Amino acid sequence: MVEDRTVTACLIIIGNEILSGRTQDKNLAHIAKGLNDAGVRLVHARVIPDVRDTIVSTVNECRAAYDYVFTTGGIGPTHDDITSECVAEAFGVRMVRDPHIAKLMEERTRARGQEMNEARLRMATFPEGAELLPNEISVAPGYRIGNVFVMAGIPSVMHVMFEHAKRHLEGGRRVEARSVTIDLGEGTIAEPLAMLQARYREIDIGSYPRMGTGGFRVSLVMRGTDGALLDRVREELKQMLRDLGGNPVDEDVEGAPAAAG
Amino acid sequence: MVEDRTVTACLIIIGNEILSGRTQDKNLAHIAKGLNDAGVRLVHARVIPDVRDTIVSTVNECRAAYDYVFTTGGIGPTHDDITSECVAEAFGVRMVRDPHIAKLMEERTRARGQEMNEARLRMATFPEGAELLPNEISVAPGYRIGNVFVMAGIPSVMHVMFEHAKRHLEGGRRVEARSVTIDLGEGTIAEPLAMLQARYREIDIGSYPRMGTGGFRVSLVMRGTDGALLDRVREELKQMLRDLGGNPVDEDVEGAPAAAG
Repeated sequence: MVEDRTVTACLIIIGNEILSGRTQDKNLAHIAKGLNDAGVRLVHARVIPDVRDTIVSTVNECRAAYDYVFTTGGIGPTHDDITSECVAEAFGVRMVRDPHIAKLMEERTRARGQEMNEARLRMATFPEGAELLPNEISVAPGYRIGNVFVMAGIPSVMHVMFEHAKRHLEGGRRVEARSVTIDLGEGTIAEPLAMLQARYREIDIGSYPRMGTGGFRVSLVMRGTDGALLDRVREELKQMLRDLGGNPVDEDVEGAPAAAG
Repeated sequence: MVEDRTVTACLIIIGNEILSGRTQDKNLAHIAKGLNDAGVRLVHARVIPDVRDTIVSTVNECRAAYDYVFTTGGIGPTHDDITSECVAEAFGVRMVRDPHIAKLMEERTRARGQEMNEARLRMATFPEGAELLPNEISVAPGYRIGNVFVMAGIPSVMHVMFEHAKRHLEGGRRVEARSVTIDLGEGTIAEPLAMLQARYREIDIGSYPRMGTGGFRVSLVMRGTDGALLDRVREELKQMLRDLGGNPVDEDVEGAPAAAG
């Protein structure tokens, strides 16, 4: 447990299909929440194309700047799957085949009535020194090298790799959240809210308007590592909102009504 | 029309709520597609927190590296809406109030039975030299300064600002796409696909597996600026896939069956 500072992570989403708008990324939110459970804060994410120099330089920049780096995408067998070669280049190591994984993949390929080939074997080849993250869905694993975790882009496959990745993390204190929704405009609450934020520097207060059927509504989300303090600030916030003529309602952090009011 | 090179754009998504996993970004895909219609390629995106130094340095880094930069988020009235101050700092200009917008906002605020205050007036205050992007939904506009377009995070509001932003863009040739779905595994098609890609360097061929009810399926997406060439490569690809024993089916680029086969 690293108690005294924020343990940070960066996510690198690799893939032309995200940048073209064809595919909607669904991995960031899953990783962000899982990291938070492990006491690690996702503080940065990048979406980059399948371009060698860009991947190499982004991996090197990010692994120097954050405690942990996660990548998604680009570890399949086709020509546009270049993440592993790029990660090897970033670390200055060669690619080596893992005979155990190659055998598992060969068995699976045969069992499906398909032929083993060089393209499939690329998925059994990893930067030297990589520690594998098993893939119970489709065999070809992800891996960790240094502080970089390399995972698939397909969400269901990424999820199983990420469960293995989490065991490697040494996190700090978990960030907790409290959330209140309010029927007042952001402009009405902004000034007292800023004063509340100024008094509690160790808590992050976010204000998130959304367009609903009844017009704008605002969720106010408080985040911090001290649960008791968060509870106190929430009560103070609700009193402030009632004084402004509003009707604050507890909600969970996803914006759904809280189980207990 | 800039004919001879790719016109590039970068999107900066600003907001703790995206990085915490609370809110799923829905703006990237909309912006990517709209930019492509305008002949501009989204080649990079970043998700960053509501942290002043991070916003300032990211805006400066990106506006130097790409033809156009778009930001979403952080232009509301609350204390965590700091995008505009940061953009002003990045450009080394002061913040100035726009009297016309201030008046419109005041009228709207009064009409809704609310009071005008300093927090609301922040949304009528912009980096000096900014050209406004009207907001027909909730008055407070986005703006352009230099090659940077600053927009709201709420998708419906972003959409109207983005329509105005598009009029400022000087794009190159539009990238077109063709897509085919196939019932063969990526490992089976990888080698001939790589050879096809090697023969047509001016086209980007992407291979996107997805987990469906019948197991994995693969979409093969070809992108390039020459529509006739794309049509030809698609026919060659389909013949190659049939030779491998597959049954290729045209689909639109979103992965839906094509209207005409």
